[in-house]
Amino acid sequence: MYQLTVLYNQPADPAAFDKYYDDVHTPLATKIPGLQRLSVSRPAPGPDGATPAYHLIAVLEFASAADFGAGMGSAEGQAAAADVANFGQAGAMMLSGEAGVI
Amino acid sequence: MYQLTVLYNQPADPAAFDKYYDDVHTPLATKIPGLQRLSVSRPAPGPDGATPAYHLIAVLEFASAADFGAGMGSAEGQAAAADVANFGQAGAMMLSGEAGVI
Repeated sequence: MYQLTVLYNQPADPAAFDKYYDDVHTPLATKIPGLQRLSVSRPAPGPDGATPAYHLIAVLEFASAADFGAGMGSAEGQAAAADVANFGQAGAMMLSGEAGVI
Repeated sequence: MYQLTVLYNQPADPAAFDKYYDDVHTPLATKIPGLQRLSVSRPAPGPDGATPAYHLIAVLEFASAADFGAGMGSAEGQAAAADVANFGQAGAMMLSGEAGVI
């Protein structure tokens, strides 16, 4: 299995970010060919009330590195990637690699 | 659904880290009551060959925040959390929050 993890920095306007993410970005992401699973989590403040380092974590799963490459290289993958510029102005880290479910 | 994401910094000895994680830590983590799914990914170097910011990403899924709290508060949860000190000397960030699978 191959995972892409996207770590979004805290946005200036979290409510606007969340609305755009759910209403616009998620439908684009779910169109990526070969995507087997997408989980989205929104970290809560830490035990000390501190704002978490990342506002949203998306984990996209593909069967293989080849499927990941093909999916992200497709028109739908490129559209989803390009859309990040429309709401991710605060920055996002993308990490991808071999993965497994235990 | 509720997710705990653990982002491990790059260890001094990646091979030793990986062996300990797979052989010792994973069996402890999978004993946490209420854990529904554990995925482990190891990010690959970026397109520019740069070492990724995190060496390993673990995503633990629970049915609810209550299940997460109960699981981490159990003896098994505390044993798994305490074990991080045995291999995570380079540091790890833990983020938990409400999540969904889309």
